[in-house]
Amino acid sequence: MIKAAIIGGSGYVGGELIRFLLFHPKVKLVGVTSQSHTGEKIGNIHQNLNGVSNLLFEKEDVKRLSQKADLIFLALPHGQSMKKVKDINLDKTKVIDLGADFRLEDKFLFEKVYKVEHVSPDKLKKAVYGLPEIKQVEISKAGLVANPGCFPTGAILALYPLAKSGLLSGSVVINSATGSSGSGVKPSVVNHHSERAQDFRAYNVFSHRHKWEISQEIAKISKSSPEIIFTPHSASFVRGIFTTVYVSTVKHHSISEVKEIYQKIYENKPFIRLTDNPRVAVVAGTNYCDIGVFSDGKHIIVTSAIDNLVKGAAGQAVQNMNIMFGMRETVGLEFPGLHP
Amino acid sequence: MIKAAIIGGSGYVGGELIRFLLFHPKVKLVGVTSQSHTGEKIGNIHQNLNGVSNLLFEKEDVKRLSQKADLIFLALPHGQSMKKVKDINLDKTKVIDLGADFRLEDKFLFEKVYKVEHVSPDKLKKAVYGLPEIKQVEISKAGLVANPGCFPTGAILALYPLAKSGLLSGSVVINSATGSSGSGVKPSVVNHHSERAQDFRAYNVFSHRHKWEISQEIAKISKSSPEIIFTPHSASFVRGIFTTVYVSTVKHHSISEVKEIYQKIYENKPFIRLTDNPRVAVVAGTNYCDIGVFSDGKHIIVTSAIDNLVKGAAGQAVQNMNIMFGMRETVGLEFPGLHP
Amino acid sequence: MIKAAIIGGSGYVGGELIRFLLFHPKVKLVGVTSQSHTGEKIGNIHQNLNGVSNLLFEKEDVKRLSQKADLIFLALPHGQSMKKVKDINLDKTKVIDLGADFRLEDKFLFEKVYKVEHVSPDKLKKAVYGLPEIKQVEISKAGLVANPGCFPTGAILALYPLAKSGLLSGSVVINSATGSSGSGVKPSVVNHHSERAQDFRAYNVFSHRHKWEISQEIAKISKSSPEIIFTPHSASFVRGIFTTVYVSTVKHHSISEVKEIYQKIYENKPFIRLTDNPRVAVVAGTNYCDIGVFSDGKHIIVTSAIDNLVKGAAGQAVQNMNIMFGMRETVGLEFPGLHP
Amino acid sequence: MIKAAIIGGSGYVGGELIRFLLFHPKVKLVGVTSQSHTGEKIGNIHQNLNGVSNLLFEKEDVKRLSQKADLIFLALPHGQSMKKVKDINLDKTKVIDLGADFRLEDKFLFEKVYKVEHVSPDKLKKAVYGLPEIKQVEISKAGLVANPGCFPTGAILALYPLAKSGLLSGSVVINSATGSSGSGVKPSVVNHHSERAQDFRAYNVFSHRHKWEISQEIAKISKSSPEIIFTPHSASFVRGIFTTVYVSTVKHHSISEVKEIYQKIYENKPFIRLTDNPRVAVVAGTNYCDIGVFSDGKHIIVTSAIDNLVKGAAGQAVQNMNIMFGMRETVGLEFPGLHP
Repeated sequence: MIKAAIIGGSGYVGGELIRFLLFHPKVKLVGVTSQSHTGEKIGNIHQNLNGVSNLLFEKEDVKRLSQKADLIFLALPHGQSMKKVKDINLDKTKVIDLGADFRLEDKFLFEKVYKVEHVSPDKLKKAVYGLPEIKQVEISKAGLVANPGCFPTGAILALYPLAKSGLLSGSVVINSATGSSGSGVKPSVVNHHSERAQDFRAYNVFSHRHKWEISQEIAKISKSSPEIIFTPHSASFVRGIFTTVYVSTVKHHSISEVKEIYQKIYENKPFIRLTDNPRVAVVAGTNYCDIGVFSDGKHIIVTSAIDNLVKGAAGQAVQNMNIMFGMRETVGLEFPGLHP
Repeated sequence: MIKAAIIGGSGYVGGELIRFLLFHPKVKLVGVTSQSHTGEKIGNIHQNLNGVSNLLFEKEDVKRLSQKADLIFLALPHGQSMKKVKDINLDKTKVIDLGADFRLEDKFLFEKVYKVEHVSPDKLKKAVYGLPEIKQVEISKAGLVANPGCFPTGAILALYPLAKSGLLSGSVVINSATGSSGSGVKPSVVNHHSERAQDFRAYNVFSHRHKWEISQEIAKISKSSPEIIFTPHSASFVRGIFTTVYVSTVKHHSISEVKEIYQKIYENKPFIRLTDNPRVAVVAGTNYCDIGVFSDGKHIIVTSAIDNLVKGAAGQAVQNMNIMFGMRETVGLEFPGLHP
Repeated sequence: MIKAAIIGGSGYVGGELIRFLLFHPKVKLVGVTSQSHTGEKIGNIHQNLNGVSNLLFEKEDVKRLSQKADLIFLALPHGQSMKKVKDINLDKTKVIDLGADFRLEDKFLFEKVYKVEHVSPDKLKKAVYGLPEIKQVEISKAGLVANPGCFPTGAILALYPLAKSGLLSGSVVINSATGSSGSGVKPSVVNHHSERAQDFRAYNVFSHRHKWEISQEIAKISKSSPEIIFTPHSASFVRGIFTTVYVSTVKHHSISEVKEIYQKIYENKPFIRLTDNPRVAVVAGTNYCDIGVFSDGKHIIVTSAIDNLVKGAAGQAVQNMNIMFGMRETVGLEFPGLHP
Repeated sequence: MIKAAIIGGSGYVGGELIRFLLFHPKVKLVGVTSQSHTGEKIGNIHQNLNGVSNLLFEKEDVKRLSQKADLIFLALPHGQSMKKVKDINLDKTKVIDLGADFRLEDKFLFEKVYKVEHVSPDKLKKAVYGLPEIKQVEISKAGLVANPGCFPTGAILALYPLAKSGLLSGSVVINSATGSSGSGVKPSVVNHHSERAQDFRAYNVFSHRHKWEISQEIAKISKSSPEIIFTPHSASFVRGIFTTVYVSTVKHHSISEVKEIYQKIYENKPFIRLTDNPRVAVVAGTNYCDIGVFSDGKHIIVTSAIDNLVKGAAGQAVQNMNIMFGMRETVGLEFPGLHP
């Protein structure tokens, strides 16, 4: 049994991590911390776990936990993980960071985008960007995995086969819609039910931080540097990200040709489902990324649907854990979604 | 033209008041205050009014405003209006209070229920409970009107004909479901979209403060004191209150007999619509109270649907204003709702 | 391995049954029928199961299936199961009927309420009303289980401890709100998103058929016959039923006394969670029934929250299956819900 | 008073037309037809109008109505209006068609896109594409106005200033999200609340018919023919269309330069509001089109929010009527939306 601990368990991502790990057949959850809810039962904060587990949130003590645990999940606001990681010996205790601190390889870019100094530049160099469909081998050897952002997960998985096949050039438009759980557990005007229940709007146009993460990874895969234009939108569902990417190709590519590229590349990827009709409601609660591919010959449109808290965060982290510890990547993540 | 001012214009009720008064043919809005948004354009806070009015939120100065205005609307949290009213000469400037401070006639009951001393007991004695379908004459002469609470509006209008006809006795069950706008503009866990969008729950069982207001008014109308059992529920819509009241009658009353009672009593009430199918979505955005009456002979069930911010707050306040200033009660409130 | 088949697998309840049985460790799903979708992949109709199973919907052939299967689930509109059951030898193949045909013990009452002749009166006599928290022993021996209706499940579980303790008398008010999945997969005006997304309304006041089922079971438990007044409401969530029951007691009962009754009676019931705050969103996707108990001494209010498709239908059917085949009742049903 | 009639009043667009015309100070509604609801009260079908008007739906008799009316609104499925218009003498009775039949100027293109022969090619030549912000003069003289489609309204208004200023070239990406009211009053799987309440998906990728309408109008304005790539999405709100357009420019254009273009061109357009934050919830129920302009120098993103049933259909039709009859274009359309 792998002994796992969670630093930051009272947010939405932390709650999903707890849920997955409690039911994972190969994991023992040895501790979950929360600064704001120390001493409370996890079922009081995550009511879905009421009666499921009697675990209490502990005070945060990274050193102590890292001695008890084989693996630590960090589910913290950006700027915090890089401090915690300093206290962890990665040779003894592996780390999966669900925040942004280790996603951008370039320290200076990170500091520009997140407006904070990076205090663990040595560990930044060791971090692996943990998108399992793309980096399975690297992840299997990693001591520190930077779990991808929610938007980048949906966008990169939609673009990966095109990037790998050299079909990306010029500018790539990425249009995404996210559910309210993406803005976290903290109440605010943008996630007030009265404001959001019947709303749709764009935000952070040209300036969302996930753009850099997408650009970095697409550049590495495609060996060119297509320009990424990324616009997130706030939608009126709770869970999920729907992404529509628009690519113009230099040559004519028939739809069957493009579909074949996707089929081949995603052939043995258990969480990728190619479908004509990706839907947020279908993947909600699951680790699937449903992908649809469309072409009119000159332009390719790819759509993807994920659950932002699962494939876009906690589920992908568990998938990474499975790979890091030599298990099948699907263990503990086989559950399908609900209908309706 | 009536000169009207609003103290506390940045909440949801304040926003609706502004909207109604800006379009009211007989009113000039001479000032709107907000402590937290002084100096900002109202259209920045209430985006629906962007481009509709260039009014700015003023600093709160009750004395000055009461000299400028014929009428002041107070849209403040409970415990505040009773302080503001001290600075207003009711003989010169009428007041409609949309908070709870002047709804309970019994000072000691108010203090017990709201856990705060009542600092305007003299004005409390002069206040008229402003439910226009019941107290039109009193309202027309009032200097200070206590605008009813949202739940009491729906509940009392559902019960009034039964109470007046002496059909209430024993205990009356009032089961209500409210939209998220009822908990106000301030973000909180209960109105977080992620928590509420697919939820339904009861709250303040046996202890909601509106129970006392309902009891007080029903007791006066029915001349008996039926026991009020009131349970509010948080529902996943934004606007509206749906109320289902359950009454057991001593004698057998046919459905046609009961319906006739409602038809007679609400005959000339322009905002009451008797229907077999009251629906929250139908009254949203309107000042209507749709009422459905059902009976199996021994038990009567009455359902009512209102918009909590309109008939349950700002619209009813404008209706009260119309009556206080000798106008038709429907002026500025004739708009129907949307479909869908 | 139990060989199970489903007659009527393309509706919402059928889809949930498929999902549970595919993942049940002790069940092999040997066939699923659908008249309207014969030959199609189940993942085309229930997109959540796309890629999860390659099963096809078969043509309905009850005889053949009953020879292959140890257990048949019937998920059909009322009036149909009683015809299918004629072709099944209950000594060889057990049946769980998720429709209404075997819920009312009195043939004449059934015919009056459902306006159709009962064509299997002999099997009606053998049927056991399958509410596992109440009838575990009877279910364990049954050949034909009538799976309870969704509203009755929430209502009876809320009332059972009071009924059993003799605290029910006079009239009992049951006020329920249901999600749109309760009206089934077939599109209609009442479940049109444009009409329902922001709506709340009562329907079938004094006339909903589930009332008879509740009355029958409560009468048997309480040995008195309290009058059941039941009002269902259409709410704007998708999954769940929230029920609020109102009981007046002859004697004074303190809240701790009443809570103790519930704790004792539900002590070893794994799917009952006593909580101060039952919520539809918390039980969605699970087989839990969360129950809250409140009292002011003279009146008792009990609230319950279930998922109408799980504890109110398919999950409860699997729970019944587990009991009928001598397994722990939780097998295949341990999953918690989501947060948020 | 203008005498107006509506052919096809029982759908969502028809209902909004009735609502606007009943409250329009210069219009008398002389007849509303419905084939499926002939003889019923409009308030039974559009419950928001219950008690507001006692009008009954008439049997469709275009000839008779066109003799009574100065103006006929056609709110019918595509392929029907072109038949009705044959019976109308446009010199005596003006027509505003809210369907698609007169939007595409090229008969052959229409027939290819809508797969039906155009039976009024002579009247097609006279029709004016009724987007008032662009064609005020033509509309003022028109006998037959083709009211624009809902998606084209939001898209063209977002692009118009760029097109007019010659900034469009290459391909233009238009990404839109629509509410469920856009698919009409008829219940179907895609607008089933259970399927849609928490969903988001793309549909008709590369093949939606509104693409041709957008292409036609943008080509005329821009005098070049930028390629239009248009993807509609089904969102989980009821009313509204949010559009995000992506344009790459040949030269560098600063954000202030681009904003100035929009300000100048939309200076005296009462229903266009330039804002940093267009939101569907803010324009719902109104005739506004809120537009946001963003640029990073090389790329321009424009977002627009409209109510698909108002600015995208019935409200725009009334705006066209106002212009056709020499009134201010805002008459009867001044109402703002709700907050929240």
